[in-house]
Amino acid sequence: MITRQLFETKILIKNGLLKEFPKELLSQRTIIIADHAIKDLYGTSLAAQIDAELLTIPTGEQSKSQTTANDLLEQLFKMQAHRKTTLIAVGGGVTIDLVGFVASIYLRGVPLILIPTSLVAIVDASIGGKTAIDTPFGKNLLGSFYHPKAIITDPSTLATLPEKEWINGLAEILKMALIHDASIWEQKNKKTFSVILQAMQGKIAIVEKDPYDWGLRHILNFGHTIGHALEALSHYTLPHGEAVAIGTVAESYLSMDLGYLQRDMFEKILAAYQFPLQLPKHYSREKILQAMIHDKKRNQVNRFVLIDKIGHAIPFEGAYCRTVTTQELAPTLHWMEANYG
Amino acid sequence: MITRQLFETKILIKNGLLKEFPKELLSQRTIIIADHAIKDLYGTSLAAQIDAELLTIPTGEQSKSQTTANDLLEQLFKMQAHRKTTLIAVGGGVTIDLVGFVASIYLRGVPLILIPTSLVAIVDASIGGKTAIDTPFGKNLLGSFYHPKAIITDPSTLATLPEKEWINGLAEILKMALIHDASIWEQKNKKTFSVILQAMQGKIAIVEKDPYDWGLRHILNFGHTIGHALEALSHYTLPHGEAVAIGTVAESYLSMDLGYLQRDMFEKILAAYQFPLQLPKHYSREKILQAMIHDKKRNQVNRFVLIDKIGHAIPFEGAYCRTVTTQELAPTLHWMEANYG
Repeated sequence: MITRQLFETKILIKNGLLKEFPKELLSQRTIIIADHAIKDLYGTSLAAQIDAELLTIPTGEQSKSQTTANDLLEQLFKMQAHRKTTLIAVGGGVTIDLVGFVASIYLRGVPLILIPTSLVAIVDASIGGKTAIDTPFGKNLLGSFYHPKAIITDPSTLATLPEKEWINGLAEILKMALIHDASIWEQKNKKTFSVILQAMQGKIAIVEKDPYDWGLRHILNFGHTIGHALEALSHYTLPHGEAVAIGTVAESYLSMDLGYLQRDMFEKILAAYQFPLQLPKHYSREKILQAMIHDKKRNQVNRFVLIDKIGHAIPFEGAYCRTVTTQELAPTLHWMEANYG
Repeated sequence: MITRQLFETKILIKNGLLKEFPKELLSQRTIIIADHAIKDLYGTSLAAQIDAELLTIPTGEQSKSQTTANDLLEQLFKMQAHRKTTLIAVGGGVTIDLVGFVASIYLRGVPLILIPTSLVAIVDASIGGKTAIDTPFGKNLLGSFYHPKAIITDPSTLATLPEKEWINGLAEILKMALIHDASIWEQKNKKTFSVILQAMQGKIAIVEKDPYDWGLRHILNFGHTIGHALEALSHYTLPHGEAVAIGTVAESYLSMDLGYLQRDMFEKILAAYQFPLQLPKHYSREKILQAMIHDKKRNQVNRFVLIDKIGHAIPFEGAYCRTVTTQELAPTLHWMEANYG
């Protein structure tokens, strides 16, 4: 068993861990929450193993909504879940973010355990205490900082993962390599445990230094300013990983275009994104600029994380991002449209 | 100026402070939120003084709802409030609790300043980092622990307070005297600054020792198990302070009936509650028992804070509450009905 501690969260990593759930983490009563697909794969058997109740949510990004959050809260009230009832979220990023938010506001917070079962949830969504739901105004706009009691990571669950979910996770792993850890870049084509662990460690190290996202943690948004905007204008039909992959290449281009990154470095980065990537159908220049204005990370000004080499985001005096004008951004959007349009 | 620090919250207390708002607490952009009554009394002039925007909510307990919270969140999105926008809540407990909750989940938390203008908000609701809204399942059932940056207490605002708001606050001050500080009891009939300050200090001292309400902080619920149930069965037409006042006398009776409190002490307590108190119209034995089961503090079992003298809640080995069976509770309900029915 590999263990890590991040603030009050115990992170446990082991193949097969889900079949031998550490019961000492549980309280008097436990409620597992999973989507329909994950319920069949892991939810039902885990509930039997640890004697827990089980709630399900619809599968897909549309569940990360106020409607689903309110449905869950209402069910918890009806079940008379109390302050010592542990909620366990089993699933991908949507379930992790949603259940985390619900756990943080139900009776002002109940104990929470996360079991990420997708690559993106393992290396990204489950780590760092951010919870979120989407609103009609944009993605992740309501949420909280709420640390789970534990994160149970069982990489053997990845065996059941469809290829497109690998790509989702890979986009975050490649991003981590570009902003923080060049050694991940060297192994990027290996679907190995060690790559996953290094990406997790990168996230832990960054969150530890800036838990509330006022400085260093911004670098995790590399590729996400454009990525989130693409997701929004596709009405979330474009998968997060593909959006982030396009965004990461585009923001690497931007880093080059603004003179921070050498062309041969950019070519290396571009070459690594070999999976099929395509701008969403409804893409237009006006729409992406509009969508970026609504992205919460910025304050009516485009701010971008930029890199100066593989493995290093530019500090910009502790801001870890730089204002980019619409004019400065134009060549990047032009290049992106030519490449992925 | 009197100042206190409670975790990250600076508590500033001074007569007239609202007219000389300490601007160094503010960020680039400030939005004041107040109900219609408080807007006219303080909101508009404060907004002009510190160059802030102003949002209003309907007056009354029904604003502590998911509907009003969602309305506020939507307005903040439309105004493009960002992560560094400070929200200032000006008003009584309803506004403080509601705006605190909204500030804690909007973009995962924005800076918050509280300006309590009622006695109950000054001595109780504003201190301790609890935020809350009500749900159809009960009072304060959704919320968070979220510490404001500052609490601006200007006791001169109490001059405009209607008598019934004094009673609301007095109920919490008398409760603080009974559970924690007998010296407050001695001065209880004086509407003085020092009584208010002592009640605030009592709350600060208790919250500091148990911020997340797992032990000592329970004592603040004295009078509230019965009080909340009375409020709920009156559909919140019974004012909080009157409900807590009846609850406090009844739970003092319970402390006596169970053998912890001497009769002459109870008689003293009873004699102090001279203001008119009356059970709500729809009161029945069945309804109050039902309402208590839905109160979140308990887990299908009636737990009560009990006192053994004026100024001292019984620790019960760190639980600071004791299970009371429905049979054990019967004489107290009988007495309460005879006295206040």
